[in-house]
Amino acid sequence: MKEIKIFAPATVANISCGFDVLGMCLDTIGDEMIIRKTSKKGVLISKIVGQVLPLDITKNVAGVAALTLLKNIETPFGFDIEIHKNIKPGSGIGSSAASAAGAVFGINKLLGEPFSLQELIPFAMEGEKLVSGVAHADNVAPALLGDFTLIRSYKPLDIIKITAPKELYATVIHPQIEIKTSDARNLVKQTVSLNKTIAQMGNIGGFISGLYTENYDLIGRSLHDEIAEPYRATLIPAFENLKIVAKKAGALGSGISGSGPSVFALSKGKETAIAVKNAFATIYKNKSIDFEIHVSKINSEGIKIIR
Amino acid sequence: MKEIKIFAPATVANISCGFDVLGMCLDTIGDEMIIRKTSKKGVLISKIVGQVLPLDITKNVAGVAALTLLKNIETPFGFDIEIHKNIKPGSGIGSSAASAAGAVFGINKLLGEPFSLQELIPFAMEGEKLVSGVAHADNVAPALLGDFTLIRSYKPLDIIKITAPKELYATVIHPQIEIKTSDARNLVKQTVSLNKTIAQMGNIGGFISGLYTENYDLIGRSLHDEIAEPYRATLIPAFENLKIVAKKAGALGSGISGSGPSVFALSKGKETAIAVKNAFATIYKNKSIDFEIHVSKINSEGIKIIR
Repeated sequence: MKEIKIFAPATVANISCGFDVLGMCLDTIGDEMIIRKTSKKGVLISKIVGQVLPLDITKNVAGVAALTLLKNIETPFGFDIEIHKNIKPGSGIGSSAASAAGAVFGINKLLGEPFSLQELIPFAMEGEKLVSGVAHADNVAPALLGDFTLIRSYKPLDIIKITAPKELYATVIHPQIEIKTSDARNLVKQTVSLNKTIAQMGNIGGFISGLYTENYDLIGRSLHDEIAEPYRATLIPAFENLKIVAKKAGALGSGISGSGPSVFALSKGKETAIAVKNAFATIYKNKSIDFEIHVSKINSEGIKIIR
Repeated sequence: MKEIKIFAPATVANISCGFDVLGMCLDTIGDEMIIRKTSKKGVLISKIVGQVLPLDITKNVAGVAALTLLKNIETPFGFDIEIHKNIKPGSGIGSSAASAAGAVFGINKLLGEPFSLQELIPFAMEGEKLVSGVAHADNVAPALLGDFTLIRSYKPLDIIKITAPKELYATVIHPQIEIKTSDARNLVKQTVSLNKTIAQMGNIGGFISGLYTENYDLIGRSLHDEIAEPYRATLIPAFENLKIVAKKAGALGSGISGSGPSVFALSKGKETAIAVKNAFATIYKNKSIDFEIHVSKINSEGIKIIR
């Protein structure tokens, strides 16, 4: 194999009750990447379509992730990366993670899979470090593994994949405003009251139980966030309205995707997820807020090979 | 049925990563209770064997729990409760919970089960309120439901039963010292750093994932407590030693049972749990600390009918 074309999916981190530990993989939105073996060693980003992003490999998440992988293995050849960006940077659905995870996934395939998907995660995390300053796994883990992922621990890195219930769908709306991850992070308090910590523990426990038992109602009851949402909600246009109409349309629950500004809802069944989409869209149309919106099954595979 | 004899099991609350939300049910230690229909309405505690505890129904957890149940249903007769206490009050393995849960379980059976086990929990919680000031469900929920229980929320009360992996065993050592639950609670800080909250969320998520997937190693990796153990450890003789020898003997992990002073370890298989028992016992024998010690499979049934 000399060349591989892949689909690098968008992802939703945090998922309300899982601040900084949960993530899930989407299916209908993502970047396409073509990665080719080159006779010249090293990494080259030859083309980026759809967004203005640096081609300099030390300033591009895909480049940094790829270089980190190549530090861990000897190869007689190099790699050329071509990125077709569909996920907007700053949208809160793992744009940088898709690039970082896609780069290491593709290179690993072309090398005959010397690394497991779990082993690729730390390489992709180095790409995240470039943009956010922190080598976090919230988005690269679900992008690489698919389904839901839980970061049990960073030291040592311990990431658990949790199979998504079959009928679980996400609706994700992206208001066309920019929130910097660092600004959103600064809003979150560095201490949490014991009562809120306990409430969050109950909800993440309930959410994970709901995933394993395919108990959609329990998943919905557990979709609360005590840590970030109360502070970040103000950054997102009409956030409370979105939550209300999501519930009315039949969603299990909703919350902020990552650090925003995208908002996600989870629903049982595609029809409900589409009803939520329509309800979300109406809110922003009425307020003349530009947006993109997606309905997606939870992606159980993660990154996919197109050819 | 005019009379019922039941086994009301001991329980372990918190389980390290599950401060105030997780509990599990033991099998080989518990109280016996005989509950009889009486022609006279109301509740009578006619006999308590094994411990000096009040017979006054308004001052006894079993009495208070029973009265709460009877406030919620009309009955043409009353109940006499006889308690054979094997679980020492203040041991940290749910002594009051066993009495409270046992009373409502027995009365419900004699009434033809008008209430589900889940519906009995709030009645038993009123018994807990008598002794600790808080109507908590940490111990009454696993005593009534068996296996592991997660308190997803108190308002509304939402308790999830999680099946225990088949080969999971607990070793519980009870140093014969008394710690007041209120003293142990006062040691716990009312705020938690964000980092510790996130670590605790990862661990409770990992622990619950481990239960559902019967992944014993993951259960062990998740047995950490950032919230209570660092502060309460000082109350328990040789706590660090117990943790070290438990690991050496093959335990998955260990921690404080409830608010102490009992210490629990979880192991895969009975043989390992017995090895942990021997290791625990040696520590306390060498320090001339009196103790009781138990090895128990996780009890999947909860309270059992003896006859």
